[in-house]
Amino acid sequence: MTDFAAIAPLLEGQAIELPSWAFGNSGTRFKVFGTPGTPRSVQEKITDAATVHRFTGLAPSVALHIPWDLTDDWAALRAHAEEQGVALGTINSNTFQDDDYKHGALTHTDPKVRQKAIDHHFECIDVMHQTGSRDLKIWLAEGSNYAGQADLRGRQDRLAESLATIYERIGEEQRLVLEYKFFEPAFYHTDVPDWGTSYAQVAALGERAVVCLDTGHHAPGTNIEFIVMQLLRLGKLGSFDFNSRFYADDDLIVGSADPFQLFRILFEVIRGGGYGPANPDGHSDVAFMLDQCHNVEEKIPGQIRSVLNVQEMTARALLVDRVALASAQEAGDVLGAHEVFMDAFSTDVRADLAAWREERGLPAHPMRAYAESGYQQQIESSRVGGTQLSWN
Amino acid sequence: MTDFAAIAPLLEGQAIELPSWAFGNSGTRFKVFGTPGTPRSVQEKITDAATVHRFTGLAPSVALHIPWDLTDDWAALRAHAEEQGVALGTINSNTFQDDDYKHGALTHTDPKVRQKAIDHHFECIDVMHQTGSRDLKIWLAEGSNYAGQADLRGRQDRLAESLATIYERIGEEQRLVLEYKFFEPAFYHTDVPDWGTSYAQVAALGERAVVCLDTGHHAPGTNIEFIVMQLLRLGKLGSFDFNSRFYADDDLIVGSADPFQLFRILFEVIRGGGYGPANPDGHSDVAFMLDQCHNVEEKIPGQIRSVLNVQEMTARALLVDRVALASAQEAGDVLGAHEVFMDAFSTDVRADLAAWREERGLPAHPMRAYAESGYQQQIESSRVGGTQLSWN
Amino acid sequence: MTDFAAIAPLLEGQAIELPSWAFGNSGTRFKVFGTPGTPRSVQEKITDAATVHRFTGLAPSVALHIPWDLTDDWAALRAHAEEQGVALGTINSNTFQDDDYKHGALTHTDPKVRQKAIDHHFECIDVMHQTGSRDLKIWLAEGSNYAGQADLRGRQDRLAESLATIYERIGEEQRLVLEYKFFEPAFYHTDVPDWGTSYAQVAALGERAVVCLDTGHHAPGTNIEFIVMQLLRLGKLGSFDFNSRFYADDDLIVGSADPFQLFRILFEVIRGGGYGPANPDGHSDVAFMLDQCHNVEEKIPGQIRSVLNVQEMTARALLVDRVALASAQEAGDVLGAHEVFMDAFSTDVRADLAAWREERGLPAHPMRAYAESGYQQQIESSRVGGTQLSWN
Amino acid sequence: MTDFAAIAPLLEGQAIELPSWAFGNSGTRFKVFGTPGTPRSVQEKITDAATVHRFTGLAPSVALHIPWDLTDDWAALRAHAEEQGVALGTINSNTFQDDDYKHGALTHTDPKVRQKAIDHHFECIDVMHQTGSRDLKIWLAEGSNYAGQADLRGRQDRLAESLATIYERIGEEQRLVLEYKFFEPAFYHTDVPDWGTSYAQVAALGERAVVCLDTGHHAPGTNIEFIVMQLLRLGKLGSFDFNSRFYADDDLIVGSADPFQLFRILFEVIRGGGYGPANPDGHSDVAFMLDQCHNVEEKIPGQIRSVLNVQEMTARALLVDRVALASAQEAGDVLGAHEVFMDAFSTDVRADLAAWREERGLPAHPMRAYAESGYQQQIESSRVGGTQLSWN
Repeated sequence: MTDFAAIAPLLEGQAIELPSWAFGNSGTRFKVFGTPGTPRSVQEKITDAATVHRFTGLAPSVALHIPWDLTDDWAALRAHAEEQGVALGTINSNTFQDDDYKHGALTHTDPKVRQKAIDHHFECIDVMHQTGSRDLKIWLAEGSNYAGQADLRGRQDRLAESLATIYERIGEEQRLVLEYKFFEPAFYHTDVPDWGTSYAQVAALGERAVVCLDTGHHAPGTNIEFIVMQLLRLGKLGSFDFNSRFYADDDLIVGSADPFQLFRILFEVIRGGGYGPANPDGHSDVAFMLDQCHNVEEKIPGQIRSVLNVQEMTARALLVDRVALASAQEAGDVLGAHEVFMDAFSTDVRADLAAWREERGLPAHPMRAYAESGYQQQIESSRVGGTQLSWN
Repeated sequence: MTDFAAIAPLLEGQAIELPSWAFGNSGTRFKVFGTPGTPRSVQEKITDAATVHRFTGLAPSVALHIPWDLTDDWAALRAHAEEQGVALGTINSNTFQDDDYKHGALTHTDPKVRQKAIDHHFECIDVMHQTGSRDLKIWLAEGSNYAGQADLRGRQDRLAESLATIYERIGEEQRLVLEYKFFEPAFYHTDVPDWGTSYAQVAALGERAVVCLDTGHHAPGTNIEFIVMQLLRLGKLGSFDFNSRFYADDDLIVGSADPFQLFRILFEVIRGGGYGPANPDGHSDVAFMLDQCHNVEEKIPGQIRSVLNVQEMTARALLVDRVALASAQEAGDVLGAHEVFMDAFSTDVRADLAAWREERGLPAHPMRAYAESGYQQQIESSRVGGTQLSWN
Repeated sequence: MTDFAAIAPLLEGQAIELPSWAFGNSGTRFKVFGTPGTPRSVQEKITDAATVHRFTGLAPSVALHIPWDLTDDWAALRAHAEEQGVALGTINSNTFQDDDYKHGALTHTDPKVRQKAIDHHFECIDVMHQTGSRDLKIWLAEGSNYAGQADLRGRQDRLAESLATIYERIGEEQRLVLEYKFFEPAFYHTDVPDWGTSYAQVAALGERAVVCLDTGHHAPGTNIEFIVMQLLRLGKLGSFDFNSRFYADDDLIVGSADPFQLFRILFEVIRGGGYGPANPDGHSDVAFMLDQCHNVEEKIPGQIRSVLNVQEMTARALLVDRVALASAQEAGDVLGAHEVFMDAFSTDVRADLAAWREERGLPAHPMRAYAESGYQQQIESSRVGGTQLSWN
Repeated sequence: MTDFAAIAPLLEGQAIELPSWAFGNSGTRFKVFGTPGTPRSVQEKITDAATVHRFTGLAPSVALHIPWDLTDDWAALRAHAEEQGVALGTINSNTFQDDDYKHGALTHTDPKVRQKAIDHHFECIDVMHQTGSRDLKIWLAEGSNYAGQADLRGRQDRLAESLATIYERIGEEQRLVLEYKFFEPAFYHTDVPDWGTSYAQVAALGERAVVCLDTGHHAPGTNIEFIVMQLLRLGKLGSFDFNSRFYADDDLIVGSADPFQLFRILFEVIRGGGYGPANPDGHSDVAFMLDQCHNVEEKIPGQIRSVLNVQEMTARALLVDRVALASAQEAGDVLGAHEVFMDAFSTDVRADLAAWREERGLPAHPMRAYAESGYQQQIESSRVGGTQLSWN
């Protein structure tokens, strides 16, 4: 098997974007539990995100959600982020919380509602120019609950038209990233339910339109690494929303439900050229992001655990002896090829990663270091009063 | 096939309990859309539920949820209901919305939290004595999100103990009804995830402890009518929560996602003696109830449509020629038996049901009659101010 | 709602292709049960298929599977079919039963194996020229069982190359139809697992390459009518393999597991211009075909029941009042639109269809007529000796 | 975390029974691929199974399937096994390959067919007396494909009666083990589809009737370790059929699809007293067995890999620091408890296990040792002629 020393340089520069909303409260339709120390402002969210980066070196940027993170002074927010050591990243639009969008937004039958949703995206693009963001990510929470309720085809055509209008507006260096989701909040049909639909829609737009793969947004049993492979092959994998699940879109900590699946996904990302540092030219256009809900666990350590999980599985995936693997595959040696693959997965890289971190001035054990840092106690005692943020 | 005239008497006395919360707002974790006319009080919910009964003759009682429907004058509420023509029915407890219950209630490691949850059920039993309710329904929203987070076995044992304490308190004419659910709000393990667990728990309690089957609470592909059969066979089917789903616990209108499944379920209910009027002694202990969310459609017509769907599929299921069916089954005539079964399902009973309703002084077309009644307009204009109720 | 009289003309010319193999024995990996009268030759299969057509008027052609249906005299076989009143239809290739294909065929790492699989398709194309078939249908039973066993990306690239070679060979009037399947016989990855992959592959080939949608080949919960809509929108829906399922690729009689789903699919076919007679120009390029296994039921009546189910749900889908539907959809009237849709589904069209058949000289009740015809008894007594055909 | 040295003694005596049929050919309904060296007799199967034991020390017994492994000299077969160093184990009955069982066996409407199936089990019990087997394992491949085809309730009642008759016949030291399966070969209903049904049936029989949990026989998303916990709690977990799956009953190598799930299952087995060596009294009544199909990989190394996977995950599960875990669980420390759990899972125990093996005179690397042993080449060259066995 490949040696850790050989792959250590490939871990340099790994970057996983954190979502600002992960630091606010979240929950289920039944209950949102609050926790002491939860941010009351976008500034506090960014401060928390920067804390994750400080302890791990893995999370140099923060994704924002509009309108949740709207501010009237973007320059100040950007300065705040930079001061904390992180950048502002992907801008996420929201077409699911306005009463007008009950029956659709970019797909709505009423052109006025569609225009309102398009205008919202124009506003997001304006924000991007101020934050220096590359990606406009669109998750369409649109669909219907009852057969017959909606004209599936009409909605798809209107979606294409709305997206084209938005796409025309993004800058030369910007990208439109279209996320798909199997179901929820719509329970009969969803307008972008699978990678095929997202791919067909972005392919019709142009080169700067790509697909976002959220690891929790698939039907039971779906082979996600296959989709990773296919989208990379088609040149359309734009970004990941990482999280994990046992059932539906559970939004659990990435790697907590099925670590082996995360390993397989990352192997396929690397194999297909989607992992920056492992690429010949040292970078890739595939953005790694978290999108999770910390319903019952603490948020900052939840995010630390998440980026560590991604790093750990990246390291294991890099350890796969690809020459031996290819050779066993060519020979039709089923068990041999599987064993080469599993050898890497079975390797405990934690001690090597701890040493790697220390060499770079990072804490060997970020979870422990955070617990001992007093940060949590500090925000719990200082963030009193105000309204804790959640999905608002 | 059996004639409608022959089954008409068996439709008499069909009763489907409505949940008070169906008349309040509900939605997903992303957004709860409000609608004009939504009740601001439990009294208004009951008035709406009574309206459904007035138009259909199918919904003579209303289930309450504690604490959502708490009042300080139960006698007055009961009088209000009776005045409107309905009775107060099942009492549903709630162990998922108090901050203390973040990591469990009846299963919690802390005996103080368990006692608090038990006390809540004692309070529910007190309410039952005042409302004249027979059933205490317990849905346990308890579980964990991460492997290792909880001791599965310890929780199961504590659950058994808590339930036993509650069971001891219910009256001689009362029942404890334990609902199971595959997942949500917990995403790794749920303490009562399947009918087997619910059955094992209630069997340990005694005769007056039974299972509630919510049609939306199963893994993909589960044969629900088989469970109906089994629970009736074991004498432990206490009640239904009717709704329908394509994916998870979608809580859509019963019969809207898979009408044939509803037909199969009702056939098995009848076959197993779980349908009152079709029984030799004219009644059954299996309670029919709705448990749905009207996220995007109007609530009162949503409930009317639901009880009509149950009635329609009950009529079709009663139409199955069971003598011919048994004969084909015995002969191993696969296609013949299937055809006897499908003959009933393919029969359009709507005109017969309309006539049946008219004979009983009910509107032939309840949906249309409601739309023309002006009730909706009246509540929309009169229910101004106050706070619309949702799951609170 | 639309009247049956109005849609009756649209039922003219409906054609559902029967698979020759449906008349042979089939089963599970555990056991294949034989039945008396099962064909011993491709001629007998065609005779049985023609019988289905004679009783229903719905099945004017028969799909063949190579090598199962190989003959050394295609002209004679064609003449036999014509004599019986049916045509030879789609040619299905087979890359899953040769020992060389254990680890792949069109995707194999060994160019010799790939060439063998390509040559097999060339042979199929030769057959098509002799049978007058339009469609070459390719179902790839290729994939792997263990992570690491295969190079997902390399296989996809080789598949593209193999398909391109085959595509170049098909005639100007012929089509290459690529079927996708979620899983089985491969249990970790399948090379064409979803519509997106099939679409991406055929889009790269050219205009005469299209997708085959088998209704049983999807992940649990997949909204199939959405895929129908999307493929029609993209101009790439080539054909259907109809069957139904509760779990995996169960290959049950179409419409037997979820009649409402079949209704929704057919509605979307009609809405998207995929149903011939309902189209302005009276025809569509979407081929309807059955692909089922009659493991425990009789085969010929099983096929009769199947085409009747498709016809019945086509009639109901044609009955949808699309003007009223569009109007309710535009108004955001969720329950109203759903009701318009369900009105058609709830309509019992059997008596109308029986009359429609009689007007056309067909038996009013094909199942009954077949049972009374003596055909089954005749084949049971005459087809003695020889080897009953199954998937060989 | 617990030290390997501390758990090493608990690995002593771990025993995983091998199924004789794993050494024969198996496949899907589409194709069974043969491999050189496949046994032509039950003796050769046992010789192969003993080889697995020789290289791993983990597989001291072989399960037999009747009638596949019938012999007219059981004493000789028993002697052959003992000579090879293994014992004969569980006897598996077969009620799915006789034409009479097309529509059921123990559940059939015809009492003659039921009696035939009961008699088959009597024969199995006779075999058990000669082989010295403790367990009679019954997997019921019974069910129906179409709604209405069968009377679900009647079948369940007849099943209970048939099982009671069989149960009466087993010896004082013998057990009846009832396996459940979600679906296949039946595709609408299965007579023992879930653990609840198996539990209800065996609970009605008596103490020596227990449940077999096959890890591949559940609906998508099912939390299997929860069922393990529950059955152990109810005193009814009799045995495991180990294998793994991504989709349906894929019968892949245990631990190959989701190693973390296997870890969780084994943790729950240990926690609940189901793992012999870890128990106070040093043994448990829960039998570990494999039930897999090696469709594309070599069989003997496939079995070696499987028992190693079980051993490796057992070791990791034993490494869980249960004191620290309980403490974090009690404290409601979600991330802390999860981390204690994951620490054990993340530990690479392969080197320790290799040393452990060497201390016991076993090869450090059984897969490599087998490959270098020449056994495979020997059986390939010597087992020429005869008929390779598969499921017959």
